[in-house]
Amino acid sequence: MDMIEKTKEKNYKFHGKVINLRTDQAIAPDGSEVYREVVEHPGGVAIALEDEDGTFFMVTQYRYAQEKILLEFPAGKKEAGEDPLETAKREIIEETGYEGTDYVYFGFIVPTGAYDTETIELYYAKKGRFLGQHLDEDENINVSKMTLDEIIDGIMAKKIPDAKTIALAFMIKAYKERQQ
Amino acid sequence: MDMIEKTKEKNYKFHGKVINLRTDQAIAPDGSEVYREVVEHPGGVAIALEDEDGTFFMVTQYRYAQEKILLEFPAGKKEAGEDPLETAKREIIEETGYEGTDYVYFGFIVPTGAYDTETIELYYAKKGRFLGQHLDEDENINVSKMTLDEIIDGIMAKKIPDAKTIALAFMIKAYKERQQ
Repeated sequence: MDMIEKTKEKNYKFHGKVINLRTDQAIAPDGSEVYREVVEHPGGVAIALEDEDGTFFMVTQYRYAQEKILLEFPAGKKEAGEDPLETAKREIIEETGYEGTDYVYFGFIVPTGAYDTETIELYYAKKGRFLGQHLDEDENINVSKMTLDEIIDGIMAKKIPDAKTIALAFMIKAYKERQQ
Repeated sequence: MDMIEKTKEKNYKFHGKVINLRTDQAIAPDGSEVYREVVEHPGGVAIALEDEDGTFFMVTQYRYAQEKILLEFPAGKKEAGEDPLETAKREIIEETGYEGTDYVYFGFIVPTGAYDTETIELYYAKKGRFLGQHLDEDENINVSKMTLDEIIDGIMAKKIPDAKTIALAFMIKAYKERQQ
């Protein structure tokens, strides 16, 4: 069954620092014309960095759009054209001070596919050398550590709502169970 | 530690059918001024509807912004001021034809909290009466059914990238395990 909507017209309404916004006219499979709003985002990565004692590095930060302080796996935005693994290797040092080693890739998630181009690539890594934290100018984060079971208990208790963190925590748990 | 950024100025750049966009000036805890781009979205719901045989209703649809056909749990956008459980009850009938019963609430996820107000409330329900599917004019979806293990295998095989579907599938699995 053909479901693809073919773009007829892209109308840019906003070019920003993080996102662009356009409204498109597209042609549906039945020939009718549909209107679509699209947020363009370069995509990001999230990294679950495991220490030798089995705890994971977590970051707490204020998420302005949500008006909430959220507890998340370290994450960051891709630079234009950047390989996501390179983004992950850069961001994990920036946010925790430690490099990651033995990277495992779990694919990407689509956070909100109806109107947003963003994907978030998910990685699991082991803690390597300490190289020193260096945050962006407008970043204000706290680093803490939790076991995977504590993270999953926090998710089930509705205390960790961040989508990438939920997906990655459960994937690591399933990955570890399947390795046994 | 104070992390809250206080809004100083909201500048609307776009008012759309699905989303609005604004750029804000805010005051960081250290007194400095920060610039934030914010997508406003009314929020949505996702529903995992389980049949008597243990299979779940899934929908396949073209996600224009992603340029991909995605396999997801049924979902929909909240009307302004609508209680999310009412949205869930409405959307599950619209998309599958069946009502849900015995609703269990798993909290909400924040799909992309850095710049978007959207939250998605997650529900698990049992299949009730057949009342008939009725889609929105610009909706074009295929309904299929999968076991929870098939969904989780699909996630781990990187074939189901939708964030709400990943979160809800793993939460139902954890919920069932904790009930045993």
